[in-house]
Amino acid sequence: MPRDRLDTLLEPIRADIHNVETILRKIIDQMEEPVESMLKTSLRGGKRLRPAVVILCGRLFEIPKTKMHRLAAAVEVLHSATLIHDDLVDNATLRRGRKTIHTVWPVGAAVLAGDYLLAQSVSLVAQLDNPGVLKILADTLYTMSAGEIDYHYSQRDRKRREVYFESINAKTASLFASAMEMVGVLAHVEASKATDLRNFGHEFGIAYQIVDDVLDVVSEKKSLGKPVGSDLAQGIITLPVICYLERRENERVLNKILSGKGNPKDIQAAIRLIRESGAIDDALDEAMAHARKSKAALSRLPAGKPRRALYDLIDYVVERKH
Amino acid sequence: MPRDRLDTLLEPIRADIHNVETILRKIIDQMEEPVESMLKTSLRGGKRLRPAVVILCGRLFEIPKTKMHRLAAAVEVLHSATLIHDDLVDNATLRRGRKTIHTVWPVGAAVLAGDYLLAQSVSLVAQLDNPGVLKILADTLYTMSAGEIDYHYSQRDRKRREVYFESINAKTASLFASAMEMVGVLAHVEASKATDLRNFGHEFGIAYQIVDDVLDVVSEKKSLGKPVGSDLAQGIITLPVICYLERRENERVLNKILSGKGNPKDIQAAIRLIRESGAIDDALDEAMAHARKSKAALSRLPAGKPRRALYDLIDYVVERKH
Repeated sequence: MPRDRLDTLLEPIRADIHNVETILRKIIDQMEEPVESMLKTSLRGGKRLRPAVVILCGRLFEIPKTKMHRLAAAVEVLHSATLIHDDLVDNATLRRGRKTIHTVWPVGAAVLAGDYLLAQSVSLVAQLDNPGVLKILADTLYTMSAGEIDYHYSQRDRKRREVYFESINAKTASLFASAMEMVGVLAHVEASKATDLRNFGHEFGIAYQIVDDVLDVVSEKKSLGKPVGSDLAQGIITLPVICYLERRENERVLNKILSGKGNPKDIQAAIRLIRESGAIDDALDEAMAHARKSKAALSRLPAGKPRRALYDLIDYVVERKH
Repeated sequence: MPRDRLDTLLEPIRADIHNVETILRKIIDQMEEPVESMLKTSLRGGKRLRPAVVILCGRLFEIPKTKMHRLAAAVEVLHSATLIHDDLVDNATLRRGRKTIHTVWPVGAAVLAGDYLLAQSVSLVAQLDNPGVLKILADTLYTMSAGEIDYHYSQRDRKRREVYFESINAKTASLFASAMEMVGVLAHVEASKATDLRNFGHEFGIAYQIVDDVLDVVSEKKSLGKPVGSDLAQGIITLPVICYLERRENERVLNKILSGKGNPKDIQAAIRLIRESGAIDDALDEAMAHARKSKAALSRLPAGKPRRALYDLIDYVVERKH
């Protein structure tokens, strides 16, 4: 059986990832019903990309392993918590091939389940005994919720591109950037290195999310774990759509969908149009540009095996097929 | 114009409350639209009872004022955040005489608005630079969300009284208890004093919530800021109802309401029955018992003006009419 490329990449830090899994497992083991039924798959699934980046960055410096594992787990738990609330806000029905919590349970249960994981994430950060890390956690939560509110409910008139990049910063890049900054705080790095770490994480997150949004248009359902084109179906305008509209603004089917009048057939037609237009390459070019910026920031951080692994991880993120 | 009794009681700490208001005002001033429209009334309303108790307890010890004000503000903001999510979970339509956020905005907006305030609360605690306080904050958030999930979605077979007391612990008393424990951490008190502080806050919170639940049955709409009997209308079984059922288990109208088949007329009839049954006195007796326990814990804390004010505050809480 061919090993998954990400697995191979993360082989050198398998023991660390295992430690993070143990922390997550303990959180699941503490759960009582009905919390466990609601949340066990939230903490079980996923690529563990955020813990992996935290661990590799932690290895660039001399961070005690216990702290690194706790931080990696805290970031993953915070990510899972915000996914639950975001899926509710976006009205997403599937996540990693499973029904989202708010579609199986009452909406209120999903709200409280997200709060429960937020509490667990704050608790893990509290165990780090480091107020600097906590301040970054609070800022991240603030940036994420304020950004999502702005994205979904603001009446301001802005360009589509601007809205898109602000939104993927709020929902994805800010957490990667903050996680890296937290590593910097734990490693007591100087200010310029903290900026490099933050920029590396931010650009990594932007590249990652653009590719995620491209995969929503070009993948097959099976590898995606949710229907193809589900962003468009939910009225979420991602970079491939924006690139398409920049090539052909007055496209009838796209306009129908964007005005909220599209049906599933229109979505499929729009996906075909986008795939055939060159917009996918435009979007991937953007992802590559951000990957290069991420590498540029990384090049100013300490050299060695962990840094080489991070370069590979950046390549993986933009080249991955699921 | 007769001064409100609470105002008179809090006169000696008016300057401190003003400082807390300034912190809350700064949080509002930082908000951009549409966050401001969603949240400004959340942080503006309320009796500021939690900040008052924090300040008075802080004065029992020698806590620096800046820290005390920040903690008081953090507790109030956390309270406001959980109210937004709880109102959504309970499907409450009014809060302090105003429409709840999730009835004016989409549900997702209320979820994110609550997260936004949670972030602000964590941020204020982060500024205290005290990991001990943070651990208590994380535990509180955990207790509140786990308790609310258990109350609303558990299938376990339990006695009504047990369910009720667990639920008011989760939604009210745990925050009072934790706030007092945080004061203890900031004051570096010994373990036994920390327990006294926690018990004082817990019993205070239980007494407060029982009276709140009694007022929902005996008040007039104007002073309540929401319809009378709104708990029953939302299917929430509070202590007056439990006391009534302990006197007369097989009451037709109550059973109809509890089985979810009651209409507004039934609610009004049930309220009359409860008011006339002696159940209100039963419930208030319970509140008094918890008030006494709160005073007993308080009697083991340092004597002086702040402690006398806290005794008065306990009396106010059980004797108040709104």
